[in-house]
Amino acid sequence: MTLPARMKLLQIEAPGHAAWKDAPLPQPAAGEVLIRVLGVSTCPHWDMHIFDGQPMFPGMKLEYPYLPGQPGHEAMGEVVALGADVTKLRVGDHVVAWRDTGKPRRGFYAQFNTFHENDLLVLPATLSPAAVASLELAMCVEVSFQQLAALGGPLGRIGLSGLGPAGLVAVQLAKAHGASEVIAFDPVAERRALALTLGADRALAPDAAQWPASRQSDALDNAIDLTGVPPAIEFLMDRTRRCVTLFGVLREQVRFGTQHLFGPGLILSGYGDHNRAAAETALRFIVEGKLHLAPLITQTMPFTRYAEAVDLLRRKQAIKILFDPWA
Amino acid sequence: MTLPARMKLLQIEAPGHAAWKDAPLPQPAAGEVLIRVLGVSTCPHWDMHIFDGQPMFPGMKLEYPYLPGQPGHEAMGEVVALGADVTKLRVGDHVVAWRDTGKPRRGFYAQFNTFHENDLLVLPATLSPAAVASLELAMCVEVSFQQLAALGGPLGRIGLSGLGPAGLVAVQLAKAHGASEVIAFDPVAERRALALTLGADRALAPDAAQWPASRQSDALDNAIDLTGVPPAIEFLMDRTRRCVTLFGVLREQVRFGTQHLFGPGLILSGYGDHNRAAAETALRFIVEGKLHLAPLITQTMPFTRYAEAVDLLRRKQAIKILFDPWA
Repeated sequence: MTLPARMKLLQIEAPGHAAWKDAPLPQPAAGEVLIRVLGVSTCPHWDMHIFDGQPMFPGMKLEYPYLPGQPGHEAMGEVVALGADVTKLRVGDHVVAWRDTGKPRRGFYAQFNTFHENDLLVLPATLSPAAVASLELAMCVEVSFQQLAALGGPLGRIGLSGLGPAGLVAVQLAKAHGASEVIAFDPVAERRALALTLGADRALAPDAAQWPASRQSDALDNAIDLTGVPPAIEFLMDRTRRCVTLFGVLREQVRFGTQHLFGPGLILSGYGDHNRAAAETALRFIVEGKLHLAPLITQTMPFTRYAEAVDLLRRKQAIKILFDPWA
Repeated sequence: MTLPARMKLLQIEAPGHAAWKDAPLPQPAAGEVLIRVLGVSTCPHWDMHIFDGQPMFPGMKLEYPYLPGQPGHEAMGEVVALGADVTKLRVGDHVVAWRDTGKPRRGFYAQFNTFHENDLLVLPATLSPAAVASLELAMCVEVSFQQLAALGGPLGRIGLSGLGPAGLVAVQLAKAHGASEVIAFDPVAERRALALTLGADRALAPDAAQWPASRQSDALDNAIDLTGVPPAIEFLMDRTRRCVTLFGVLREQVRFGTQHLFGPGLILSGYGDHNRAAAETALRFIVEGKLHLAPLITQTMPFTRYAEAVDLLRRKQAIKILFDPWA
């Protein structure tokens, strides 16, 4: 394959304004490869925050023009060139980014991007962009299951609060990890219906009429909050016997009270650390047909429609949008 | 030994009024033994609440005259008679009550009491009342160490908040379980001095000038709160990397916030279940000389001075008081 000298990439030049523009092809540094991006999916809260000029985490500073290609990080593609000292990857490998490194660097909202080989997993060439581009999200969610596993004991009857992309992945990971029953909570009926098709045993609106507060033997054994919203978290805490672990980014305080102290004492757990083993587990579930990411992709678009895509996410008319940089 | 027909016991007849009075000797039911009480220690918060007419747990109802012999439950003595079907104990055994069964029954503030053999541990006859009467408290505190052990990983640098009797036991259990460093927090200088003699590496006033808030690598690895007071708990949460487990009875809400979510995520854990294994571990530490309960006994009294004893506890002029029913 002959590589072009230039390419197209997306840049958020100011809040509310994104440009799909020309740029030189990046060069892989030592340990990095050059990837021809075949598909990259939205990470809805990142996209909404960055495009709107709001920091994702309290205290984080944003500067515009934003880094080219960012905040794209859920990407898969083909290795087209190797930097120096690359030992694990070869030209022609299909790869997926298993983590957002968090370092300030160009992102995957582009036709090509460079990435360190340690931050990529090799894929079977049969997996489509829709099936695997969002692997990084699945890794993030799998970390919460690692945390529950580290506490020992079976998942049992697990509650999941919030059926955004992370929640819809969590439904499937819970089944793949052998939960005896998966109860999903979300106020949106369409999301509940989708959760049922993805394996949830029950999908309920998060109100006390649907599931009264109790930490007795018929309660949830464990739960994962995927909303970050205190009322949703406290809803789970009042209905869970063992552990509520937090996936959603918390911006306000959650209250732990007398009702959580005994019989048995509740464990409220913050989030863990991203890790390659979690990504490998998620990829194995994809290959085994236990984790389906394609149903989360509700639209596929070219990058020229980025502003429209973010608007669909904001109005909850899309779950995830897959961009094809070559469309 | 010829058993008397009658004995003395303490009864709290109304809030603020206790009588040391005559009663018939109780008869052991099936599975129970009759114990000649050799020493019984205060459980300060129970004593203060019951004598003051305040429920220990929110929502608990109190009726007076209170149950005879209650709230005495930290007791040791000698088995002097067996009920039917007793298989593990013999007359002459020295025993300690390893748990308060929680069922409404007569307590140990008496010269004699009956108790089920399953709720007693046999003691070496060399152990004095002061050395072992408070074993039930040590069992309760050991449960918090079982919880930390169940989370995996070493205790590391452990923080302990509150140097009442439970905290002074926790200092010793932390060392016995191999904590690399024990940091004790209490506002009372005399308690801090005692904690140092019992093995704490550092004993500090709980203020930010003494130990600034940080969850970085120099923070506490784990912590146990023994106060039940939200500011003390949140002090630990803002300084602990892994787990804060709650021993103190929580009456108000604790706030879990953004600073606890990441890097690494904090685990906030309610209390566990009382169990015989925890009592056996505590007794083994006593026998091995790793857990000293006698230093917690600051006064020994007859029951005729019960009101004075509670007053000393309330004014923090006593840590624990041992009653000798034969004095």
